[in-house]
Order: sequence, then C-alpha cells, then structure tokens
Amino acid sequence: MDFINIQKDGNLAIIRLERGKVHALNDQVVKELHDTFKDMEHDDSVRAIILTGTGKFFSFGFDIPGFMNHSPEAFTGFVTRFTDLCTYMFLYPKPIIAAINGHVIAGGCILTTAADYRIMVTGKSKISLNEITFGSSIFASSVDMLKFCVGHRNAELILTTGNMYSAEDAHRMGLVDRVTSDENLMEESKKVALNYATKEPPAFTSLKMLSRKPVAEIMIAREREAIREFVKIWYSPATRAYLKKVTIHS
Amino acid sequence: MDFINIQKDGNLAIIRLERGKVHALNDQVVKELHDTFKDMEHDDSVRAIILTGTGKFFSFGFDIPGFMNHSPEAFTGFVTRFTDLCTYMFLYPKPIIAAINGHVIAGGCILTTAADYRIMVTGKSKISLNEITFGSSIFASSVDMLKFCVGHRNAELILTTGNMYSAEDAHRMGLVDRVTSDENLMEESKKVALNYATKEPPAFTSLKMLSRKPVAEIMIAREREAIREFVKIWYSPATRAYLKKVTIHS
Amino acid sequence: MDFINIQKDGNLAIIRLERGKVHALNDQVVKELHDTFKDMEHDDSVRAIILTGTGKFFSFGFDIPGFMNHSPEAFTGFVTRFTDLCTYMFLYPKPIIAAINGHVIAGGCILTTAADYRIMVTGKSKISLNEITFGSSIFASSVDMLKFCVGHRNAELILTTGNMYSAEDAHRMGLVDRVTSDENLMEESKKVALNYATKEPPAFTSLKMLSRKPVAEIMIAREREAIREFVKIWYSPATRAYLKKVTIHS
Repeated sequence: MDFINIQKDGNLAIIRLERGKVHALNDQVVKELHDTFKDMEHDDSVRAIILTGTGKFFSFGFDIPGFMNHSPEAFTGFVTRFTDLCTYMFLYPKPIIAAINGHVIAGGCILTTAADYRIMVTGKSKISLNEITFGSSIFASSVDMLKFCVGHRNAELILTTGNMYSAEDAHRMGLVDRVTSDENLMEESKKVALNYATKEPPAFTSLKMLSRKPVAEIMIAREREAIREFVKIWYSPATRAYLKKVTIHS
Repeated sequence: MDFINIQKDGNLAIIRLERGKVHALNDQVVKELHDTFKDMEHDDSVRAIILTGTGKFFSFGFDIPGFMNHSPEAFTGFVTRFTDLCTYMFLYPKPIIAAINGHVIAGGCILTTAADYRIMVTGKSKISLNEITFGSSIFASSVDMLKFCVGHRNAELILTTGNMYSAEDAHRMGLVDRVTSDENLMEESKKVALNYATKEPPAFTSLKMLSRKPVAEIMIAREREAIREFVKIWYSPATRAYLKKVTIHS
Repeated sequence: MDFINIQKDGNLAIIRLERGKVHALNDQVVKELHDTFKDMEHDDSVRAIILTGTGKFFSFGFDIPGFMNHSPEAFTGFVTRFTDLCTYMFLYPKPIIAAINGHVIAGGCILTTAADYRIMVTGKSKISLNEITFGSSIFASSVDMLKFCVGHRNAELILTTGNMYSAEDAHRMGLVDRVTSDENLMEESKKVALNYATKEPPAFTSLKMLSRKPVAEIMIAREREAIREFVKIWYSPATRAYLKKVTIHS
C-alpha cells in the first residue's frame, strides 16, 4: 500500500490516509481502501475499523489537478469505483469509525458519511460538502448517506449552500456524532470502536443491514444516472473554469 | 395579474400575494402563481425568487367561503391544480425563498414547505397546518413536503394536533429555517436569495433534484388517491358543519 | 383477560399490562392485546386509548425463560404474531397514547413506538432496545417504527449500542414525546388523549394513514425475511448462551 497505512491494535484495525499533505483521493487510494476493507471483511481478528487521516487533513477530497487531463470516460470510471467503495463501506458488515483528525472536504466528507460513527476534532478543522461552490453536483449515494446522517432538510442545506462547518456546528446538525480535542481523538475513537467490538457480529450486521438496506437500495437504483449527470456538469465549460482555478491554487 | 404583485430586483424576483387582507387561495391565485413561476423558469435574468405576502398575512389558506358552493367535481379540480402547483414548486429548478411576513395557515403553510428556504417574522404571527381542527384531511404532497422539512415524527404531531406555532417554535421543529424581525425580513430574505443566486444553476438544480426526486416520486404516486379521500371528507356532513362556521366567521 | 386490565373513562380506554412484576410478553399477552384493540376499533364510545404498565415496569420485553423450550417454528409463530400486532397498532385508526410508567425494554419498547404519543416518567426508569447486548437482532417493523420516531441516525445508534436511556435522554432523541413525574403521568396522558379525542375521527385517521402508510408498506414488504434472520440468530449457539444467562438471572 502506497497511500494508506494499516495498524492492528488488539481486535481493532486503524487505516490511515497518507497521500501527500491533503490525502487527495485518486484511483489508487480508492483501490487501496477497497482492497484493505475487503481483506479485513474476512479477517476474524478484526472486529472494528478506525479510518483516519494524518496531519491537518482527513482528506481534502478528489485529486482535482490529477483528473484535469482525464477523458470523461476515464473520469466516469473513477467516480463509479469511488461510489462503489462508498456503497460497500455503507453496507460493510463490521463497524467503521471515522476519526476525523482535520479538514474533511467533498469526497473526503462523503467517505466519512458511509461510516458507523464519526468523531471530529474541535479547533480550526472544517467539514464540508462544498461541491456546489465549484459548480459541481454530487452522487446519489452521497446524498442518501448524508440524509441518513442528518435528515432530508439539513442534507439539502449542506449541499445547496456548500458551507464550511466547524466540528461543533457539524455535531449540532448530526453530521458528526461526537467532538473531541486533537489529543483525545484516537483514545476516544478506540473506546467507541472497542464498544462496537464487544457486540456479537451476526447481531450487529443484521441490525446494520435492517437499518441501511432500504436506503442502499434507493441509492444504488439511481446511481448510474446520477453519475452520468455529475460527469456532464463536471465537463461543462463553467465548471471546468472553476476546476482550473482550484488546480492553479493547489 | 390581479392577485399577485411581481417586482424585479437585480437577478431576484419578488412575488407578493395580494388578495384582500388574508390572501386566501382560490383558482385564480393558483393560476397566477403557476403562470408566474413558469415564466420565470425560462427567464435567465431571474436567479432566485422570493415569495411573500402583505400586511399581517402570508396567506390564511384556501378561500373556504368561496368554495362552499362548488360541486365536489369542481373542488377536486381546484385541489388537483393546487397540489400540481406545490409539486411543481417543490421540484422548481431555481431557488424559492419563502419570506413569511405574517400568519401562514393551512394551504398557505403548504405553499411555503415547497420552497427551498423559509424565513419567518417573530411576534404574533402563527404558522399552522390546522386542517384537522375543522375536520379536514390534507394532501399526500403536503405530508411528504412537511416530512422533508421536519421529519416523520414532527410532521405527524403538527398534522394530528393542528397546533398554532410561533416562529420560534416552528424554528425549533425545523418548519422554518430562520426567524427575524418584521423590519429585517426582506433584507435577510434577499441576502439568502442572493447567496443562492451565486451558485452555478446546473449544479444547484442537480443537487436539488438528487435531494427531492425520490420524495416527489412517492408523493406523486399516491396523490390522486389522497385527493379522492380529501374531497370525500371535505363534503362529509361533520366537516361541512365546521366549514360553515369558518365561513360565517370570515 | 388474564394479563391485561381494561378501564373505561369517558370516551377514553385504559389498557394496563399486568403479568407478574415485569409484564413479560408471551403469546397470550399478545393475543389479549390484539383482541382488545380489535374490539375497541369498532366501539364508537372509545375515541382514544392509553396503554400503560403497572408498578416499576411498562414491560421488560419478551418472556425469554418461557420461550427457551420453544422450537424455532413455534417461536417464529410467536414473533410473527407479535410483529403483526405492532403493525396493526402502528396503523390503528384511533389514537394510542403510551403512558410509560416504568422500565420499558426491548419488546416492551417496540410496542410503544407503534403508538401515536409517548409520555415517560422521569427518575430511575430506563428505556432501551437492548437486543444487541444479548446477541439478538430485531424486526423490520421495529427498525422502521423507531426510525419514524427518531430518524435514521438515532435509530441506528439506539439499536447498535443497545444503550439504556433515561426519560430525559429519550426525550432529547425523540424516542418519547414528553416526560413527566410519576404522580402526573396518568393525568397528563389523559389530557393528551382527550385532545386527540376531540378530533374528527375521519380526519384523524386519514392524516395518520397519509403519514404512516408509505412507512408501513416498506416494513411489511421486508418483515418475513427479517423474521427468518431474527430466528436464525436467536437459535445460534452464541445467542442461546446469552439467553440462558438472562433466564438464570430472572
């Protein structure tokens, strides 16, 4: 694995995003995450997984500069694999805890909404689904996972304003389940993960599926059409102009 | 337009209900609203719309005295056009901000739940879906748009109690997104509208549809049957007795 | 009726669970509840129903020791009749108020989520869907009724942690609608019930069905498969070990 770091701690596994400073998501990061989750799904020694970042970022989202020269077909391939990863995580049979150590933006934020629990550090870190601010739409699964966390109304406000939220604001809306200090993040995340790890796996998985499957069915049914529209907007001249600005500044 | 007043302010449009003192909704008001929204949908100079009332009322709801002599068939025609307007507004491609300047009751309240954002004045003004207090049911779209704003549970409480809420109570439940003073209503509404107006239209519309279409599909599928039941209850002797009392007092 | 007590008070009916100290649910309790609700459905003198317990318990849930010698087939029969009762109560045409006088756990808690309104006493009483703590899953209808009360996110947290909540915590999450003291429980419950009783029955029933039917359709469609999985987990060696411990301690 080039861009993620894996640690075992008792019956917990910690997956840490480590790609440059902002852990931008590209095809390889998505593949490494997918392969790692797949391995752990069948590893009985892993009872719960903590997903986290490093430094000041959990993840800044898609590697926009890296995608600028992709054809629409190649980019469609990437976003399909990304949404497949999200849906797979959303229905993952074991508990996933997102330990949000820093800024978590766009695609990074989407990943966390697939988890079972989100803990975020207070301070300067921001959480946002800011796609609209650079003229972009989002995926069906992203909308439905967000609604699962915060309800219809807050989901629409988050998406159509593109606001940047503090951990406290996010907690009030239900976008994160708990806030804590930077120093306590891993300790508290492990405590939450260990609590999940004590539960009988068949009961946990059954309850999670009863809770999530009807939501997943709706998002899967409309994802392909949503991706088509997402890509169309992404390659429109107005949105390309925004993306080029993002590329120059990064 | 006899019963609505239209103003342009930069890339914003302001639609103001102006029918008597309470802006009771009848077939012509519904037609004027529908035609106006239709015109603005294709007018590129309009990027966001503010819908408001005048005086002490946003709208008191249906013009009950005016409907007392309608046949069930004629009344079915009206409510079908009203629910069509609501569904059209709920899926409107541009942002609609409801600037709630005063009392907003029953059909008036339903209109606001179709908007993207609701700001309401504090003070004596009340918001209510009080149909049950005069023995009436409501429409499938009304229930589903209300659930979209406040969730299943609050929606059912609002509908089955028929309570009158202050702006502050409504804000706590999610029925309005912001409260403000009478003097600041239009300024704040314009600020919200202008923020929406800066967003790229294709991204905004795409996100709004991703958020609302699955809800709209459910409400559209069951609306015709709901209207049939609504009209049946409306013409029942018990409900007619309530409606006559309302008519005498208005 | 051996295990429930029925009182009439004006146009209200009060159904009181009275089976031993903890009012554990078995086939006969479920049958008595079902028959009583059925009778009252067609009794015009009953306009609202209060469901409550006695002593320190509303209900501790299923009579686990009593089910230990049941075959999977017999137990499947019981849980099918239990979920049928819940669905019937969820769609009951008249208002049901749960007056939660004490601890309300697992199957007991499920019953209350089918009601129209929940009032719970403050103090030492706990409310919990703690199935996961003894290795058990739950029913599709239980998940969907819980989501109806508290939303997707809180529902999943309640189910996958199995936490015991105070009345105040439950109120904050929306799991109960009001909290009160032990002394005031019946008076306040009657006030709520009488308020519902003033509403025109056809309007009330129509609004309740508009609010609940789309939810009920989803839960009914997936209940049979959920029950199959529930029973399979219940008879797994790991879960049987937990259930035996519960049996010995009770």
